[in-house]
Amino acid sequence: MNRTPLILVTNDDGIHARGMEALISVTRRFGDVVAISSREPMSGMSHAITIKVPLRVKLVSKEPGLTCYVTNGTPVDGVKLVFNSLSDRKPDLLLSGINHGSNSSSSVLYSGTMAAAMEGAVNHIPSIGFSLLSYDPDADFTASGRVAEEVIRHVMEQGLPDGICLNVNIPALSSEEIRGIRICSQANGYWKEEFEKRTDPNGAEYYWLTGFFHNREPENGGTGTDEWALKNRYVSVVPINTDLTAYDVLEKMKSLEFAQTGKHE
Amino acid sequence: MNRTPLILVTNDDGIHARGMEALISVTRRFGDVVAISSREPMSGMSHAITIKVPLRVKLVSKEPGLTCYVTNGTPVDGVKLVFNSLSDRKPDLLLSGINHGSNSSSSVLYSGTMAAAMEGAVNHIPSIGFSLLSYDPDADFTASGRVAEEVIRHVMEQGLPDGICLNVNIPALSSEEIRGIRICSQANGYWKEEFEKRTDPNGAEYYWLTGFFHNREPENGGTGTDEWALKNRYVSVVPINTDLTAYDVLEKMKSLEFAQTGKHE
Repeated sequence: MNRTPLILVTNDDGIHARGMEALISVTRRFGDVVAISSREPMSGMSHAITIKVPLRVKLVSKEPGLTCYVTNGTPVDGVKLVFNSLSDRKPDLLLSGINHGSNSSSSVLYSGTMAAAMEGAVNHIPSIGFSLLSYDPDADFTASGRVAEEVIRHVMEQGLPDGICLNVNIPALSSEEIRGIRICSQANGYWKEEFEKRTDPNGAEYYWLTGFFHNREPENGGTGTDEWALKNRYVSVVPINTDLTAYDVLEKMKSLEFAQTGKHE
Repeated sequence: MNRTPLILVTNDDGIHARGMEALISVTRRFGDVVAISSREPMSGMSHAITIKVPLRVKLVSKEPGLTCYVTNGTPVDGVKLVFNSLSDRKPDLLLSGINHGSNSSSSVLYSGTMAAAMEGAVNHIPSIGFSLLSYDPDADFTASGRVAEEVIRHVMEQGLPDGICLNVNIPALSSEEIRGIRICSQANGYWKEEFEKRTDPNGAEYYWLTGFFHNREPENGGTGTDEWALKNRYVSVVPINTDLTAYDVLEKMKSLEFAQTGKHE
């Protein structure tokens, strides 16, 4: 039976973000859309789930081919709600974004956008997270919408390996300026945090998290990394594992098994 | 110069959790301890960071060899605060836990305990997360304390590869019942959520997140997985990657590079 594909669209910037609007608009060309987003922006929420407070869900709009919900939960809560309660069938594809701001390199670990995509992959649904390298709420999503369309078409035709999702980052450039799409590895980098320490009107100290990204890759090496691709005007696509096992170090660690615990057997 | 090692201890169950108390007590045998925890339990917070509200930090106690802080932030916020603001030197080791409840298989993705350990690994600090398979706040941490001591000793002697941390899960058994330590892969499993739908006194619907773990590994296969080890009374140790790139699928996806975007060049 050839049904219209059902596609789940979510993000971590909230339901009114232009990036989500752009992604929904592209996605409708491929199938029926069920969209869910958090009532408030949830950047940096990573794979957080809500255990301590009840989850609320509100149906925002419903028209042929498009149903939109908001929730007080995190991006991953939203994905779980659609998988388990809000849809009578399992989505064929999960798309997250288009995020306002980069999720390249180790930012994938903190990203609510990518956590939603990883949640899809854990549930055996082909999933893609999209991010535009601009934090501007009024950013132009024309070029990134075209990139998204191309990647979505590829994944709908070819599928994705089980447990793998894609982390797609797009330079904030026009379609003409973007040089192509590169399949990349995650650059070795980290956020060097500097906390801004302030004093409130009551004399108590507090901190704001701030900081900047530090790339550990060599300047002219790391040509296969997402950071290199983005700096060189390419779209970066990193296939992301939800099995976090470091298989290459697993064998080397076997010596630990011959240690003290259990030696009484 | 042979300085006393500085060891950062954190968790996601809050400063008063018995598991953290047990871990601090073991850790003090290895060096000076700086401990930080969240004011409230942060289970399921994953790698979330706090951007929207200011972070508060309180020095709870200070004695020779042990300094304790609490914060309103997440476990990862706490780790970042120690790395950047609260300590005058970089910790030599990061320990997280002992968590009240399992973080095996895909639970590693949701776990605040393991996110703290991953944050350490991203920052090039040997890091280990410990979890006991009991949610009981009064659980007995005697055996898991011994296991922790053994794994800590191994890591302090041997180190860990860059960007890798350990996910250690411990059966809720006595030292005599535990059969040994196994180096494992992350079992292929997921949480099958069932939301409990209720109606509040005002007639509005809400959901509680609940659910159960589903192991996709074959019953008698999967002998190398953490789930198998734990079911068979072994401690499971999974080396965890903070580079999430799926290198084995990277090559296969190169065809995507020859697609439409950039073909105008």
